[in-house]
Amino acid sequence: MKESPGVVDLLGVLAYAELSAYARMTEDAATLAPSLADRAALSELAITEYAHFRLLRDRLTELGADPDGAMAPFVSALDAWHGQTRPADWLQALVKTYVGDGIALDFYREAARHLDPSIVKLVDEVLVDEERSKFAVEQVRAGIEAQPTAAGKLALWARRLVGEALSQGQQVASVRPDLALLLMESLGEGQTDISRLFAKLTEAHNKRMAAMGL
Amino acid sequence: MKESPGVVDLLGVLAYAELSAYARMTEDAATLAPSLADRAALSELAITEYAHFRLLRDRLTELGADPDGAMAPFVSALDAWHGQTRPADWLQALVKTYVGDGIALDFYREAARHLDPSIVKLVDEVLVDEERSKFAVEQVRAGIEAQPTAAGKLALWARRLVGEALSQGQQVASVRPDLALLLMESLGEGQTDISRLFAKLTEAHNKRMAAMGL
Repeated sequence: MKESPGVVDLLGVLAYAELSAYARMTEDAATLAPSLADRAALSELAITEYAHFRLLRDRLTELGADPDGAMAPFVSALDAWHGQTRPADWLQALVKTYVGDGIALDFYREAARHLDPSIVKLVDEVLVDEERSKFAVEQVRAGIEAQPTAAGKLALWARRLVGEALSQGQQVASVRPDLALLLMESLGEGQTDISRLFAKLTEAHNKRMAAMGL
Repeated sequence: MKESPGVVDLLGVLAYAELSAYARMTEDAATLAPSLADRAALSELAITEYAHFRLLRDRLTELGADPDGAMAPFVSALDAWHGQTRPADWLQALVKTYVGDGIALDFYREAARHLDPSIVKLVDEVLVDEERSKFAVEQVRAGIEAQPTAAGKLALWARRLVGEALSQGQQVASVRPDLALLLMESLGEGQTDISRLFAKLTEAHNKRMAAMGL
Protein backbone atom coordinates (compact mmCIF):
# COMPACT_ATOMS: atom_id res chain seq x y z
CA MET A 1 0.00 0.00 0.00
CA LYS A 2 0.97 3.64 -0.38
CA GLU A 3 1.70 4.39 3.26
CA SER A 4 0.08 7.70 4.00
CA PRO A 5 1.48 9.50 7.05
CA GLY A 6 -2.07 10.39 8.03
CA VAL A 7 -3.16 6.77 8.49
CA VAL A 8 -1.81 6.45 12.02
CA ASP A 9 -3.41 9.79 12.85
CA LEU A 10 -6.73 8.68 11.44
CA LEU A 11 -6.74 5.37 13.33
CA GLY A 12 -5.50 7.19 16.45
CA VAL A 13 -8.25 9.80 16.46
CA LEU A 14 -10.84 7.14 15.72
CA ALA A 15 -9.52 4.89 18.51
CA TYR A 16 -9.72 7.68 21.06
CA ALA A 17 -13.12 8.73 19.73
CA GLU A 18 -14.39 5.19 20.38
CA LEU A 19 -12.72 4.90 23.79
CA SER A 20 -14.14 8.21 24.95
CA ALA A 21 -17.58 7.53 23.42
CA TYR A 22 -17.65 4.28 25.40
CA ALA A 23 -16.92 6.11 28.69
CA ARG A 24 -19.33 8.94 27.98
CA MET A 25 -22.22 6.69 26.89
CA THR A 26 -21.68 4.52 29.96
CA GLU A 27 -21.86 7.59 32.18
CA ASP A 28 -24.93 8.97 30.40
CA ALA A 29 -26.59 5.57 30.77
CA ALA A 30 -25.83 5.46 34.50
CA THR A 31 -26.92 9.02 35.24
CA LEU A 32 -29.68 9.87 32.73
CA ALA A 33 -31.52 6.69 31.71
CA PRO A 34 -35.17 6.75 32.80
CA SER A 35 -35.19 3.02 33.61
CA LEU A 36 -32.77 0.20 34.30
CA ALA A 37 -33.75 -1.38 30.98
CA ASP A 38 -32.85 1.81 29.10
CA ARG A 39 -29.65 2.02 31.09
CA ALA A 40 -28.74 -1.50 30.01
CA ALA A 41 -29.65 -0.76 26.38
CA LEU A 42 -27.37 2.28 26.16
CA SER A 43 -24.63 0.41 28.04
CA GLU A 44 -24.77 -2.34 25.39
CA LEU A 45 -24.17 0.28 22.71
CA ALA A 46 -21.30 1.73 24.75
CA ILE A 47 -19.66 -1.68 24.89
CA THR A 48 -19.91 -1.97 21.11
CA GLU A 49 -17.90 1.25 20.90
CA TYR A 50 -15.30 -0.32 23.15
CA ALA A 51 -15.09 -3.35 20.84
CA HIS A 52 -14.40 -0.93 17.98
CA PHE A 53 -11.68 0.73 20.03
CA ARG A 54 -10.09 -2.70 20.47
CA LEU A 55 -10.04 -3.32 16.70
CA LEU A 56 -8.43 0.04 16.01
CA ARG A 57 -5.84 -0.38 18.75
CA ASP A 58 -4.89 -3.80 17.43
CA ARG A 59 -4.57 -2.48 13.90
CA LEU A 60 -2.30 0.33 15.10
CA THR A 61 -0.11 -2.26 16.79
CA GLU A 62 -0.03 -4.30 13.58
CA LEU A 63 1.11 -1.21 11.69
CA GLY A 64 4.01 -0.92 14.10
CA ALA A 65 2.55 2.16 15.81
CA ASP A 66 2.16 2.67 19.55
CA PRO A 67 -1.60 3.00 20.16
CA ASP A 68 -1.19 5.34 23.13
CA GLY A 69 1.13 7.58 21.15
CA ALA A 70 -1.27 7.57 18.20
CA MET A 71 -4.24 8.58 20.38
CA ALA A 72 -2.42 11.13 22.55
CA PRO A 73 -2.59 14.12 20.16
CA PHE A 74 -6.40 13.91 20.11
CA VAL A 75 -7.20 13.42 23.77
CA SER A 76 -7.60 17.07 24.70
CA ALA A 77 -9.75 18.03 21.69
CA LEU A 78 -12.12 15.08 22.17
CA ASP A 79 -12.27 15.55 25.93
CA ALA A 80 -13.06 19.23 25.32
CA TRP A 81 -15.86 18.24 22.95
CA HIS A 82 -17.40 15.96 25.56
CA GLY A 83 -16.91 18.56 28.31
CA GLN A 84 -18.66 21.24 26.28
CA THR A 85 -21.55 19.03 25.24
CA ARG A 86 -22.67 17.37 28.47
CA PRO A 87 -26.28 16.31 27.92
CA ALA A 88 -28.73 17.58 30.53
CA ASP A 89 -31.24 14.77 30.06
CA TRP A 90 -31.83 11.41 28.40
CA LEU A 91 -33.07 12.75 25.05
CA GLN A 92 -30.15 15.15 24.77
CA ALA A 93 -27.81 12.22 25.41
CA LEU A 94 -29.40 10.23 22.59
CA VAL A 95 -29.38 13.15 20.17
CA LYS A 96 -25.70 13.62 20.98
CA THR A 97 -24.96 9.97 20.32
CA TYR A 98 -26.75 10.05 17.01
CA VAL A 99 -26.18 13.52 15.57
CA GLY A 100 -22.92 14.59 17.17
CA ASP A 101 -21.12 11.34 16.57
CA GLY A 102 -22.84 11.00 13.21
CA ILE A 103 -21.28 14.11 11.74
CA ALA A 104 -17.85 13.25 13.15
CA LEU A 105 -18.08 9.76 11.65
CA ASP A 106 -18.98 11.19 8.23
CA PHE A 107 -15.73 13.12 8.33
CA TYR A 108 -13.67 10.09 9.29
CA ARG A 109 -15.24 8.00 6.58
CA GLU A 110 -14.49 10.68 4.01
CA ALA A 111 -10.88 10.93 5.16
CA ALA A 112 -10.42 7.17 4.79
CA ARG A 113 -11.92 6.99 1.31
CA HIS A 114 -8.72 6.69 -0.69
CA LEU A 115 -6.64 4.62 1.68
CA ASP A 116 -5.62 0.98 1.48
CA PRO A 117 -8.77 -1.19 1.14
CA SER A 118 -8.01 -3.01 4.41
CA ILE A 119 -8.07 0.35 6.23
CA VAL A 120 -11.27 1.40 4.46
CA LYS A 121 -12.85 -1.89 5.52
CA LEU A 122 -11.80 -1.42 9.15
CA VAL A 123 -13.05 2.17 9.24
CA ASP A 124 -16.37 1.12 7.74
CA GLU A 125 -16.65 -1.66 10.29
CA VAL A 126 -16.09 0.55 13.32
CA LEU A 127 -18.29 3.31 11.95
CA VAL A 128 -21.31 1.08 11.57
CA ASP A 129 -24.00 2.63 13.70
CA GLU A 130 -27.23 0.87 12.82
CA GLU A 131 -28.05 -0.34 16.32
CA ARG A 132 -27.19 2.95 17.91
CA SER A 133 -29.16 4.92 15.34
CA LYS A 134 -32.19 2.71 15.68
CA PHE A 135 -32.25 3.03 19.45
CA ALA A 136 -31.71 6.80 19.45
CA VAL A 137 -34.29 7.44 16.73
CA GLU A 138 -36.97 5.34 18.43
CA GLN A 139 -36.41 6.89 21.83
CA VAL A 140 -36.27 10.49 20.59
CA ARG A 141 -39.39 10.06 18.43
CA ALA A 142 -41.26 8.59 21.38
CA GLY A 143 -40.02 11.38 23.65
CA ILE A 144 -41.22 14.07 21.26
CA GLU A 145 -44.56 12.36 20.85
CA ALA A 146 -45.02 12.36 24.63
CA GLN A 147 -43.90 15.97 24.92
CA PRO A 148 -44.08 17.89 21.64
CA THR A 149 -42.55 21.06 23.12
CA ALA A 150 -39.27 19.16 23.56
CA ALA A 151 -38.67 19.16 19.78
CA GLY A 152 -37.60 22.81 19.51
CA LYS A 153 -35.09 22.57 22.32
CA LEU A 154 -33.64 19.35 20.93
CA ALA A 155 -33.24 20.94 17.50
CA LEU A 156 -31.28 23.80 19.10
CA TRP A 157 -29.19 21.27 21.00
CA ALA A 158 -28.39 19.43 17.76
CA ARG A 159 -27.29 22.68 16.15
CA ARG A 160 -25.00 23.40 19.08
CA LEU A 161 -23.50 19.90 18.82
CA VAL A 162 -22.65 20.44 15.16
CA GLY A 163 -21.09 23.82 15.91
CA GLU A 164 -18.91 22.37 18.67
CA ALA A 165 -17.93 19.41 16.49
CA LEU A 166 -16.80 21.68 13.66
CA SER A 167 -14.87 23.89 16.03
CA GLN A 168 -13.02 20.94 17.60
CA GLY A 169 -12.49 19.43 14.15
CA GLN A 170 -10.80 22.61 12.94
CA GLN A 171 -8.50 22.61 15.94
CA VAL A 172 -7.53 19.00 15.32
CA ALA A 173 -6.89 19.70 11.66
CA SER A 174 -4.66 22.66 12.50
CA VAL A 175 -2.39 20.64 14.81
CA ARG A 176 -2.40 17.45 12.70
CA PRO A 177 -1.74 18.54 9.12
CA ASP A 178 -1.28 14.93 7.92
CA LEU A 179 -4.83 14.16 8.94
CA ALA A 180 -6.13 17.30 7.25
CA LEU A 181 -4.17 16.29 4.18
CA LEU A 182 -5.93 12.92 4.05
CA LEU A 183 -9.26 14.68 3.91
CA MET A 184 -7.98 17.07 1.24
CA GLU A 185 -6.59 14.19 -0.85
CA SER A 186 -9.87 12.34 -0.65
CA LEU A 187 -11.54 15.50 -1.92
CA GLY A 188 -9.36 15.93 -4.96
CA GLU A 189 -8.41 19.48 -5.85
CA GLY A 190 -10.39 22.61 -6.09
CA GLN A 191 -13.18 24.43 -4.37
CA THR A 192 -15.91 22.40 -6.07
CA ASP A 193 -15.00 19.29 -4.15
CA ILE A 194 -14.95 21.05 -0.80
CA SER A 195 -18.40 22.42 -1.54
CA ARG A 196 -19.49 18.93 -2.51
CA LEU A 197 -18.14 17.53 0.80
CA PHE A 198 -20.05 20.09 2.83
CA ALA A 199 -23.19 19.49 0.84
CA LYS A 200 -22.82 15.76 1.51
CA LEU A 201 -22.27 16.22 5.25
CA THR A 202 -25.19 18.63 5.50
CA GLU A 203 -27.43 16.23 3.65
CA ALA A 204 -26.51 13.36 5.96
CA HIS A 205 -27.08 15.58 8.98
CA ASN A 206 -30.49 16.70 7.75
CA LYS A 207 -31.46 13.08 7.17
CA ARG A 208 -30.61 12.24 10.77
CA MET A 209 -32.61 15.19 12.06
CA ALA A 210 -35.60 14.19 9.95
CA ALA A 211 -35.35 10.57 11.13
CA MET A 212 -35.77 11.79 14.71
CA GLY A 213 -38.63 14.05 13.77
CA LEU A 214 -36.60 17.22 14.39
CA MET B 1 -35.49 -27.05 43.59
CA LYS B 2 -36.66 -25.66 46.91
CA GLU B 3 -37.56 -22.16 45.68
CA SER B 4 -36.22 -19.77 48.24
CA PRO B 5 -37.89 -16.35 48.23
CA GLY B 6 -34.47 -14.81 48.67
CA VAL B 7 -33.15 -16.09 45.32
CA VAL B 8 -34.62 -13.29 43.24
CA ASP B 9 -33.31 -10.80 45.80
CA LEU B 10 -29.85 -12.33 45.65
CA LEU B 11 -29.70 -12.31 41.87
CA GLY B 12 -31.22 -8.81 41.84
CA VAL B 13 -28.67 -7.31 44.21
CA LEU B 14 -25.84 -9.07 42.36
CA ALA B 15 -27.13 -7.86 38.98
CA TYR B 16 -27.25 -4.26 40.13
CA ALA B 17 -23.88 -4.63 41.85
CA GLU B 18 -22.38 -5.72 38.51
CA LEU B 19 -24.18 -3.03 36.49
CA SER B 20 -23.06 -0.28 38.85
CA ALA B 21 -19.52 -1.69 39.15
CA TYR B 22 -19.31 -1.57 35.36
CA ALA B 23 -20.30 2.12 35.28
CA ARG B 24 -18.08 3.08 38.18
CA MET B 25 -14.98 1.25 36.90
CA THR B 26 -15.49 2.80 33.47
CA GLU B 27 -15.64 6.25 35.04
CA ASP B 28 -12.61 5.62 37.25
CA ALA B 29 -10.73 4.37 34.18
CA ALA B 30 -11.63 7.50 32.21
CA THR B 31 -10.85 9.98 34.97
CA LEU B 32 -8.06 8.43 37.06
CA ALA B 33 -5.94 6.12 34.90
CA PRO B 34 -2.36 7.36 34.57
CA SER B 35 -2.09 6.22 30.93
CA LEU B 36 -4.33 5.25 28.05
CA ALA B 37 -3.09 1.65 28.36
CA ASP B 38 -4.14 1.54 32.04
CA ARG B 39 -7.43 3.13 31.10
CA ALA B 40 -8.04 0.38 28.53
CA ALA B 41 -7.02 -2.33 31.02
CA LEU B 42 -9.51 -1.18 33.67
CA SER B 43 -12.18 -0.68 31.00
CA GLU B 44 -11.72 -4.31 29.94
CA LEU B 45 -12.39 -5.39 33.52
CA ALA B 46 -15.44 -3.13 33.64
CA ILE B 47 -16.83 -4.81 30.54
CA THR B 48 -16.40 -8.21 32.18
CA GLU B 49 -18.63 -6.94 34.99
CA TYR B 50 -21.21 -5.98 32.41
CA ALA B 51 -21.08 -9.47 30.91
CA HIS B 52 -21.83 -10.81 34.41
CA PHE B 53 -24.75 -8.43 34.71
CA ARG B 54 -26.11 -9.86 31.45
CA LEU B 55 -25.92 -13.44 32.78
CA LEU B 56 -27.75 -12.49 35.98
CA ARG B 57 -30.41 -10.53 34.16
CA ASP B 58 -31.05 -13.43 31.80
CA ARG B 59 -31.32 -15.87 34.70
CA LEU B 60 -33.82 -13.61 36.44
CA THR B 61 -35.90 -13.60 33.28
CA GLU B 62 -35.69 -17.40 33.09
CA LEU B 63 -36.95 -17.60 36.65
CA GLY B 64 -39.97 -15.56 35.61
CA ALA B 65 -38.83 -12.47 37.47
CA ASP B 66 -38.65 -8.94 36.08
CA PRO B 67 -34.95 -7.96 36.20
CA ASP B 68 -35.67 -4.26 36.72
CA GLY B 69 -38.03 -5.03 39.56
CA ALA B 70 -35.53 -7.41 41.13
CA MET B 71 -32.75 -4.82 41.03
CA ALA B 72 -34.84 -1.81 42.08
CA PRO B 73 -34.77 -2.38 45.88
CA PHE B 74 -30.97 -2.26 45.87
CA VAL B 75 -30.30 0.74 43.65
CA SER B 76 -30.21 3.37 46.38
CA ALA B 77 -28.00 1.39 48.78
CA LEU B 78 -25.45 0.53 46.10
CA ASP B 79 -25.50 4.04 44.64
CA ALA B 80 -24.94 5.38 48.16
CA TRP B 81 -21.99 3.03 48.59
CA HIS B 82 -20.40 4.31 45.38
CA GLY B 83 -21.21 7.92 46.25
CA GLN B 84 -19.57 7.62 49.66
CA THR B 85 -16.48 5.85 48.38
CA ARG B 86 -15.38 7.91 45.39
CA PRO B 87 -11.68 7.18 44.89
CA ALA B 88 -9.45 10.25 44.79
CA ASP B 89 -6.73 8.65 42.69
CA TRP B 90 -5.83 5.61 40.63
CA LEU B 91 -4.54 3.46 43.51
CA GLN B 92 -7.62 4.19 45.62
CA ALA B 93 -9.76 3.11 42.66
CA LEU B 94 -7.90 -0.20 42.39
CA VAL B 95 -8.02 -0.85 46.13
CA LYS B 96 -11.75 -0.18 45.99
CA THR B 97 -12.20 -2.60 43.12
CA TYR B 98 -10.26 -5.30 44.90
CA VAL B 99 -11.02 -4.88 48.60
CA GLY B 100 -14.41 -3.22 48.60
CA ASP B 101 -15.95 -5.47 46.00
CA GLY B 102 -14.06 -8.44 47.44
CA ILE B 103 -15.77 -8.30 50.81
CA ALA B 104 -19.18 -7.76 49.22
CA LEU B 105 -18.64 -10.75 46.96
CA ASP B 106 -17.68 -12.94 49.91
CA PHE B 107 -21.06 -12.14 51.42
CA TYR B 108 -22.96 -12.95 48.24
CA ARG B 109 -21.09 -16.21 47.80
CA GLU B 110 -21.91 -17.18 51.38
CA ALA B 111 -25.60 -16.34 50.90
CA ALA B 112 -25.76 -18.55 47.80
CA ARG B 113 -24.08 -21.54 49.43
CA HIS B 114 -27.17 -23.68 50.06
CA LEU B 115 -29.19 -22.79 46.99
CA ASP B 116 -29.93 -24.85 43.91
CA PRO B 117 -26.62 -25.98 42.30
CA SER B 118 -27.38 -24.10 39.08
CA ILE B 119 -27.66 -20.86 41.09
CA VAL B 120 -24.48 -21.62 43.01
CA LYS B 121 -22.70 -22.22 39.71
CA LEU B 122 -23.97 -18.92 38.26
CA VAL B 123 -22.99 -16.99 41.38
CA ASP B 124 -19.53 -18.54 41.34
CA GLU B 125 -19.17 -17.66 37.68
CA VAL B 126 -20.05 -14.00 38.07
CA LEU B 127 -17.99 -13.67 41.23
CA VAL B 128 -14.79 -14.86 39.60
CA ASP B 129 -12.32 -12.05 40.02
CA GLU B 130 -8.93 -13.44 39.06
CA GLU B 131 -8.19 -10.94 36.30
CA ARG B 132 -9.37 -8.00 38.34
CA SER B 133 -7.43 -9.11 41.39
CA LYS B 134 -4.26 -9.69 39.43
CA PHE B 135 -4.39 -6.26 37.83
CA ALA B 136 -5.20 -4.44 41.08
CA VAL B 137 -2.56 -6.28 43.08
CA GLU B 138 0.19 -5.64 40.52
CA GLN B 139 -0.63 -1.97 40.16
CA VAL B 140 -0.97 -1.30 43.89
CA ARG B 141 2.26 -3.13 44.72
CA ALA B 142 4.10 -1.16 42.03
CA GLY B 143 2.55 2.08 43.29
CA ILE B 144 3.67 1.44 46.86
CA GLU B 145 7.14 0.50 45.70
CA ALA B 146 7.41 3.79 43.85
CA GLN B 147 6.04 5.76 46.78
CA PRO B 148 6.24 3.86 50.10
CA THR B 149 4.42 6.59 52.06
CA ALA B 150 1.24 5.79 50.05
CA ALA B 151 0.82 2.50 51.91
CA GLY B 152 -0.47 3.97 55.18
CA LYS B 153 -3.10 6.10 53.45
CA LEU B 154 -4.26 3.21 51.29
CA ALA B 155 -4.60 0.98 54.36
CA LEU B 156 -6.84 3.62 55.97
CA TRP B 157 -8.84 3.88 52.74
CA ALA B 158 -9.34 0.10 52.71
CA ARG B 159 -10.60 0.22 56.30
CA ARG B 160 -13.08 2.93 55.37
CA LEU B 161 -14.30 0.87 52.41
CA VAL B 162 -15.00 -2.10 54.66
CA GLY B 163 -16.84 0.12 57.15
CA GLU B 164 -19.04 1.62 54.43
CA ALA B 165 -19.70 -1.80 52.91
CA LEU B 166 -20.85 -3.21 56.25
CA SER B 167 -23.06 -0.21 56.91
CA GLN B 168 -24.74 -0.45 53.48
CA GLY B 169 -25.02 -4.21 53.87
CA GLN B 170 -26.87 -3.84 57.16
CA GLN B 171 -29.31 -1.41 55.57
CA VAL B 172 -29.98 -3.80 52.70
CA ALA B 173 -30.51 -6.69 55.11
CA SER B 174 -32.98 -4.67 57.16
CA VAL B 175 -35.20 -3.83 54.16
CA ARG B 176 -34.86 -7.24 52.46
CA PRO B 177 -35.43 -9.85 55.16
CA ASP B 178 -35.56 -12.68 52.60
CA LEU B 179 -32.03 -11.94 51.57
CA ALA B 180 -30.87 -11.74 55.19
CA LEU B 181 -32.60 -15.05 55.77
CA LEU B 182 -30.61 -16.69 52.97
CA LEU B 183 -27.43 -15.68 54.70
CA MET B 184 -28.73 -16.93 58.03
CA GLU B 185 -29.79 -20.25 56.53
CA SER B 186 -26.42 -20.74 54.96
CA LEU B 187 -24.90 -20.15 58.35
CA GLY B 188 -26.92 -22.73 60.16
CA GLU B 189 -28.11 -21.84 63.64
CA GLY B 190 -26.36 -20.34 66.54
CA GLN B 191 -23.79 -17.78 67.42
CA THR B 192 -20.85 -20.06 66.61
CA ASP B 193 -21.61 -19.99 62.91
CA ILE B 194 -21.96 -16.22 62.77
CA SER B 195 -18.59 -15.93 64.46
CA ARG B 196 -17.21 -18.39 61.95
CA LEU B 197 -18.59 -16.34 59.05
CA PHE B 198 -16.99 -13.17 60.36
CA ALA B 199 -13.72 -14.97 60.95
CA LYS B 200 -13.86 -16.23 57.37
CA LEU B 201 -14.61 -12.81 55.89
CA THR B 202 -11.89 -11.19 57.97
CA GLU B 203 -9.40 -13.79 56.90
CA ALA B 204 -10.23 -13.28 53.23
CA HIS B 205 -9.96 -9.51 53.69
CA ASN B 206 -6.58 -9.79 55.40
CA LYS B 207 -5.32 -12.00 52.59
CA ARG B 208 -6.28 -9.36 50.06
CA MET B 209 -4.57 -6.62 52.06
CA ALA B 210 -1.41 -8.72 52.35
CA ALA B 211 -1.46 -9.49 48.62
CA MET B 212 -1.31 -5.77 47.90
CA GLY B 213 1.42 -5.25 50.47
CA LEU B 214 -0.84 -3.29 52.82
